[in-house]
Amino acid sequence: MENDNRPAKIRRSGYARPKVAVDTVLFAACGGRLVSYLVPIIRGPLAGKWAFPGGLVRTGEVLDDAARRELVAATGLADAYLEQLFTFGDPSRDPAAHVVSVAYMALARDPRAVAPKAGEYPPGQWFEVSALPPLAYDHGLMAEYALRRLKGKIEYTNIAYAMLPREFTFAELEELYGAILGRPVDRRNFRRRIMSMGLLARCAGERRGAHRPAALYKFKQQSLQAVEML
Amino acid sequence: MENDNRPAKIRRSGYARPKVAVDTVLFAACGGRLVSYLVPIIRGPLAGKWAFPGGLVRTGEVLDDAARRELVAATGLADAYLEQLFTFGDPSRDPAAHVVSVAYMALARDPRAVAPKAGEYPPGQWFEVSALPPLAYDHGLMAEYALRRLKGKIEYTNIAYAMLPREFTFAELEELYGAILGRPVDRRNFRRRIMSMGLLARCAGERRGAHRPAALYKFKQQSLQAVEML
Repeated sequence: MENDNRPAKIRRSGYARPKVAVDTVLFAACGGRLVSYLVPIIRGPLAGKWAFPGGLVRTGEVLDDAARRELVAATGLADAYLEQLFTFGDPSRDPAAHVVSVAYMALARDPRAVAPKAGEYPPGQWFEVSALPPLAYDHGLMAEYALRRLKGKIEYTNIAYAMLPREFTFAELEELYGAILGRPVDRRNFRRRIMSMGLLARCAGERRGAHRPAALYKFKQQSLQAVEML
Repeated sequence: MENDNRPAKIRRSGYARPKVAVDTVLFAACGGRLVSYLVPIIRGPLAGKWAFPGGLVRTGEVLDDAARRELVAATGLADAYLEQLFTFGDPSRDPAAHVVSVAYMALARDPRAVAPKAGEYPPGQWFEVSALPPLAYDHGLMAEYALRRLKGKIEYTNIAYAMLPREFTFAELEELYGAILGRPVDRRNFRRRIMSMGLLARCAGERRGAHRPAALYKFKQQSLQAVEML
């Protein structure tokens, strides 16, 4: 019920309301490391810090669309996996105004594919998640939330599909899990556990190279699928 | 980064921004049934429908505080368990304006303890979750989200502590799980599974009544505690 108990003077003033923004924590894997994309803040009291791409929600705009719009403006990645994470509303999170931010987590397959739209964002940069630079606002907290969500979800969903090419070797999957968890995975247990989740299918071909041929796998589903735990 | 790409005219107008509200899906258990508290809408185009307690967030107000304030105004329950659920932002969810709602889930121990603050809300009513009346806005969707979250969390946390007296019998715990899951639980498996989670402690006394004395249990922790799954 959207009733409003505030004094009439404040209720009438549109300026007195909190603003609504979206911010997106984008992850990708690169050489066995989990990385996240940040844009520098150029002007104002937070100049010199870095932030996740984001901006104000427009009137009449769906939240997911706003997050997608800002992510595309900053990175050009139109088909990144995107899910709502948590809404941050501490009035002191932005020194300029009371801005409530609906945070998203996004996942990209290929960090090299970033191509920001000219003029909308300053060029950004990928950073290792374990070594992020000083972040503006409460974006450090957002990064923690997003990492926790991603670590949680790889245990019981196929979400890794959004960070891998369509066909991949088991070694590549293992490397991705290691990058997200921030530690090497136990090879034997990992294979048994992943296979028991029933999310993977064997592909017809194999990868040939310097080493012996490696079997190729794919996720059966290219959209989020959860495993029943009980 | 709270940059704003909208035309200057819209950017200047506070009225053009989405508003921020909170809404709270409150659950309790009553006679083996899961119930939720709704308030009737008295005036306007949505009159005759029911809604979860909620209202606009004040400038400078923390989101959790806003949710607590509205819940207390509607129910008087100052110590209900409260957690953020999901933020709903479809511009068409409220026919009057673009209102982004940060939804919460709340849990109460005793549905009979409800005592609304005079004058702030019309008197509400508990409804069985399986038979809710027609809901306003997107509150049907909120109810579904909240129920899914609660069903999920009883599998791997001690969250049931917030819906039970401090000491309870196993039969009472079993009845609560059955109410939340919407089906009877298998007595033998349930006891084994719950005990293996390691969340419960045996109390000193027992409950005496018409039947044979029943052992009393309590949750070791009276705040949210998750079980490691792997």
